[in-house]
Amino acid sequence: MITTRTAGSSMMDLKTDILAADNCIRPFIRETPLEYSIVLSHMTGCEVYLKCENLQHTGSFKVRGAFNKLLLLNDEQRSRGIVTASSGNHGLAVAFGLNQFHIPSIIFMPENASSTKVENIRHYGVPIEFYEKDMMLTEAYARDYAKRHKMVYISPYNDLQVISGQGTIGIELMRQLDAIDTVFACVGGGGLISGVGAYLKSISPQIKIIGCLPENSPVMAESIKAGHILEMETRPTLSDATAGGIEPNAITFNLCQQYVDEFNLVTEDEIEAAIIHIMQCHHFLIEGASGVALAAFIKNAERYRNKKVVVVLSGANISLETLKMILN
Amino acid sequence: MITTRTAGSSMMDLKTDILAADNCIRPFIRETPLEYSIVLSHMTGCEVYLKCENLQHTGSFKVRGAFNKLLLLNDEQRSRGIVTASSGNHGLAVAFGLNQFHIPSIIFMPENASSTKVENIRHYGVPIEFYEKDMMLTEAYARDYAKRHKMVYISPYNDLQVISGQGTIGIELMRQLDAIDTVFACVGGGGLISGVGAYLKSISPQIKIIGCLPENSPVMAESIKAGHILEMETRPTLSDATAGGIEPNAITFNLCQQYVDEFNLVTEDEIEAAIIHIMQCHHFLIEGASGVALAAFIKNAERYRNKKVVVVLSGANISLETLKMILN
Repeated sequence: MITTRTAGSSMMDLKTDILAADNCIRPFIRETPLEYSIVLSHMTGCEVYLKCENLQHTGSFKVRGAFNKLLLLNDEQRSRGIVTASSGNHGLAVAFGLNQFHIPSIIFMPENASSTKVENIRHYGVPIEFYEKDMMLTEAYARDYAKRHKMVYISPYNDLQVISGQGTIGIELMRQLDAIDTVFACVGGGGLISGVGAYLKSISPQIKIIGCLPENSPVMAESIKAGHILEMETRPTLSDATAGGIEPNAITFNLCQQYVDEFNLVTEDEIEAAIIHIMQCHHFLIEGASGVALAAFIKNAERYRNKKVVVVLSGANISLETLKMILN
Repeated sequence: MITTRTAGSSMMDLKTDILAADNCIRPFIRETPLEYSIVLSHMTGCEVYLKCENLQHTGSFKVRGAFNKLLLLNDEQRSRGIVTASSGNHGLAVAFGLNQFHIPSIIFMPENASSTKVENIRHYGVPIEFYEKDMMLTEAYARDYAKRHKMVYISPYNDLQVISGQGTIGIELMRQLDAIDTVFACVGGGGLISGVGAYLKSISPQIKIIGCLPENSPVMAESIKAGHILEMETRPTLSDATAGGIEPNAITFNLCQQYVDEFNLVTEDEIEAAIIHIMQCHHFLIEGASGVALAAFIKNAERYRNKKVVVVLSGANISLETLKMILN
């Protein structure tokens, strides 16, 4: 029987949900490699491993949460259909999932979404509707649309089933590496780190979870410092996947309070250097959000000498324009 | 008991060696994903799959052959040590392998090898010696050095044990996909396509094997046409991993005669477009040689409508300079 937990779920509830998610989504997702980085290890004196969600289907971890959500819909929900809003990794992940099921759906995108992103989603055959030029407005409209039509709105992070899906990365990490000391992961809405943190700490409470954010958009880090979710202006960042505000009352706020030991902020130059490093030494394409996690580790590496460190490369979806800008 | 076969080996001998190689090297290599390309499939009307050797350890298929060779050394050979010459994927693959065993070794590189490539190999702790500025001269010197010191020279392609290692890609393909019609793979020395072709045809003789080369360096294709290995001038190509001449009496010549159904040549612009396509739609970094195979498929796609096509992305190791040039 599928139960739906509330925001007050305990760590053990969440662990149970993550294990259940793993069972559900396993046939649809990749167990991504955990790559030992000889270069980063030599450079820092740590034992450094990269969790390659950049190699996940659709190029980001988001398919984990999207599949869990889709697979947990009941018959009525399935027949009424789902709605989401995203021009990025979440939209691509949901579209990839929908391509494998027959569920009515609409993905709302802002009018000014890049044509590459629109095309990449369109290939999965999911109806796209354009609304406004602003992502926040488009999201609000999509949520309202879902309510009015009694459809399920799939949030990119503010949903325990989505978070449980992301947490399956933690299950793979525990299988892939013994005695992990510290995990670095990016934080936008906080879905990734909530899931991974909850699972890892339920098994080994001593594992340190480091939330990594760009200085230009440090919303969750500042919110945790303030003790409540802040509405704050953010500046453009290479880490577009983690940029922007957090919904009021997002359940990830409490989860981050519980499971994130420390937040580290990085500059745009540091993100850029991290992206270049991975291209040069590992020949992976990574997006800004992955660069944030790596940059935060490199910046603080001295504190982790001789420790086993995992850096989550959360995604690969960098635009050619951004790549060109970085290389020049 | 390990037997060493000669150039006159039959397809069934080679199949046996490839199966044995798979057994040997499996703990050390990745079963790389076979990624269905929804975009390429829509674009061409074929069912297109990408064999992602760009995601193999060290970023190319070469670790397969390198490991097989290293694991098949007998005690005397191990104690005397190995020699190779390469500033590219083969060198990196051998260094990666040596890092896990205790075998005396030298990797010869040309004096003008790029510092990134030298650094990437140096991290594996294998002694590097520099010799001359020309790769062909460096290779000849390394072979001679090995002979004088009774060490084993590891050729990047002219060696049945290396070829058997590369052939393990064929085993994975047969496991990953039913009823393959056609496989596109790049051809330099011919080690990759000989191994993959021999294995696939030993199981399903009707599978078509297409050898893909840059117009600027079509040595094997021209040699097969001529009926003997040609010494010919080549021009610079984005596909540096397949560029250059073939050793006289290379065993891959006969193997290509037997197992390659057709050769397709592509221009530098077509290679460039293929690299861009993969970055944009799959968010993988691929090197020129991978681009050659994809470009050859795209150019001839009409002939394969409704067929199941595999394109081998042989490697990821593109330099940042090359990438920058392509993006501009």
